[in-house]
Amino acid sequence: MHADSDSVPGDARRLRHDDRPTLGDIHDAAARLVGLAHVTPVLRSRSLDALAGCELFFKAENLQRAGAFKFRGAANAVFSLGPDEAARGVVTQSSGNHGAALALACRLRGIRCTVVVPHSAPRIKREAIARNGARIVDCGVAQAERNEATARVLAETGGELVHPFNDARVIAGQGTAALELLQQVERRGQARDGRPALDVVLAPLSGGGLMSGTAVVAKGLDTRIRAIAAEPEGASDGHDSLKSGTRITGRTADTISDGLRAELGPLTFSILRDHCDDVLLVSDAETVAAMRLVWDRLKLVIEPSCAVPLAAVLKHRDRFAGQRVGLILSGGNVDLDALPALLALAPA
Amino acid sequence: MHADSDSVPGDARRLRHDDRPTLGDIHDAAARLVGLAHVTPVLRSRSLDALAGCELFFKAENLQRAGAFKFRGAANAVFSLGPDEAARGVVTQSSGNHGAALALACRLRGIRCTVVVPHSAPRIKREAIARNGARIVDCGVAQAERNEATARVLAETGGELVHPFNDARVIAGQGTAALELLQQVERRGQARDGRPALDVVLAPLSGGGLMSGTAVVAKGLDTRIRAIAAEPEGASDGHDSLKSGTRITGRTADTISDGLRAELGPLTFSILRDHCDDVLLVSDAETVAAMRLVWDRLKLVIEPSCAVPLAAVLKHRDRFAGQRVGLILSGGNVDLDALPALLALAPA
Repeated sequence: MHADSDSVPGDARRLRHDDRPTLGDIHDAAARLVGLAHVTPVLRSRSLDALAGCELFFKAENLQRAGAFKFRGAANAVFSLGPDEAARGVVTQSSGNHGAALALACRLRGIRCTVVVPHSAPRIKREAIARNGARIVDCGVAQAERNEATARVLAETGGELVHPFNDARVIAGQGTAALELLQQVERRGQARDGRPALDVVLAPLSGGGLMSGTAVVAKGLDTRIRAIAAEPEGASDGHDSLKSGTRITGRTADTISDGLRAELGPLTFSILRDHCDDVLLVSDAETVAAMRLVWDRLKLVIEPSCAVPLAAVLKHRDRFAGQRVGLILSGGNVDLDALPALLALAPA
Repeated sequence: MHADSDSVPGDARRLRHDDRPTLGDIHDAAARLVGLAHVTPVLRSRSLDALAGCELFFKAENLQRAGAFKFRGAANAVFSLGPDEAARGVVTQSSGNHGAALALACRLRGIRCTVVVPHSAPRIKREAIARNGARIVDCGVAQAERNEATARVLAETGGELVHPFNDARVIAGQGTAALELLQQVERRGQARDGRPALDVVLAPLSGGGLMSGTAVVAKGLDTRIRAIAAEPEGASDGHDSLKSGTRITGRTADTISDGLRAELGPLTFSILRDHCDDVLLVSDAETVAAMRLVWDRLKLVIEPSCAVPLAAVLKHRDRFAGQRVGLILSGGNVDLDALPALLALAPA
């Protein structure tokens, strides 16, 4: 499982943003992130195992720097730029975690960062971007307005676009979460007669960066590991795209999971069509109930988006019965002032 | 620092409940807890370091089994009982985390457990006791009523009392949290020219079990490590007892930190008088503000009691400037339904 884990960044192939990342690229990203990203813990809960009827392994990326897995992809992209690209700085559009993560990665490398932020972005996420020293450019909520503002900033600055998900360097970085999870579970050393350390890995599905990286890792390490995405019913474009074989765009998402409102990009769609085994849908009430369970049993602050995979496992218990199930807890950037309203969606 | 860490439970001296535990007893407890208690992570936050003006190392005992450090002491007591004592079962009085922790420890050893619970105990803590299979005996809130009910149950069952804090076996178990913290920080290997891994360790002060174990570890490992307690202003009996040299009893506590309303026992008072360097007091609003920071920056669910040491560090920044400061995050058993009212005490 660690075949090429001793590769070093210097040996890494130079990923272009529209390449399809391989397991080797994800190992390269993992080497690049040593000392930059936290090695987040894998947490377990006997009471949640009993509820779910399977063995759950939670990869606590809410404890990642800047509060979400997004730092992995952002830092991999920023630290793989050549000196000339770095000197021009980077640009992105983001309503949240990716913007804060990219801002932090740029601050660490000492380069300029501009984030195009829609008016609708949660206050807490906007503050995190500003706290890390990035320039914020406001724009409208519609995708066309975001794209227009981003294109304008790119033209003005000559900077490098680091797309939140439709970028091979970002996908490779996000994949390091699943890689690290599988390595950590394997190191715990419960031998399983030649079977892989986990039977299945789940991640939430939005634009598909995390899920693409997760799926490439699962299938690259052992084709028997299932890679399953979880998505809100009110933002089921990913599910419908992968079921129909046609990438669906232009829908309006309706879900409290504000991190899961994006639609697949051409690159992530192409990767997931090949490597993602299934997409499970859950309601917002199921998501909030799962979020409460994580708060209550794992003592972790997670945002609603982050609870969607657990909600999917609890809804489809028969699909996971008795199995070893990895879940990427994607982020913890919840607005504490919005909590009372959120909790009211699924009372105890 | 690991001088006798290879001692095994079989070699351990048999602690009586009214002994004064030594560092050796705490090493014995640590050996006994291997495979029973979680090795909880030590978490850091650059933004909290910047706010506090020092280096903070958070020992996340809210991720301990049963959601609090209390499991360490309870399991050490339960698993050091002889077979005859074990057969008669154990009894305690608790409004919360100790009861749930003792219930879990007894379930793991397969022995009977009875917990005397005052009517005022939070619902979430009562449920955790019941979930772990202990028998609950209700009683009034006054200490005299609790004592009377406990004495009655002890007489009826012939069971062994495992006091929540005034018990050497419990204190030795609680001390393993600080021991583990210091070992973990030391293993991270930032050498400091012969200075100890941390300059100071803080824990919340209630009945004094955790703080006594913490202080014995600090002073036992290196007398230069300061052991500082933090206590709510509305439950300052510990502070006043240690300042006056006389153990104060019979006061009524007035604080939202429901885990910190107990008063010192004779054993913990005696230990702290010798080994605790200072007690810092904080208001409830300061506690809730610190709790919000931990939720927001560390992404951990902690209960108010647990935030008291961080509140003390932020209030007395000059006392800790530039130092390496360990904080025991004691527990995460907050009632999610009570959150809105709690957060309103210290708006963002």
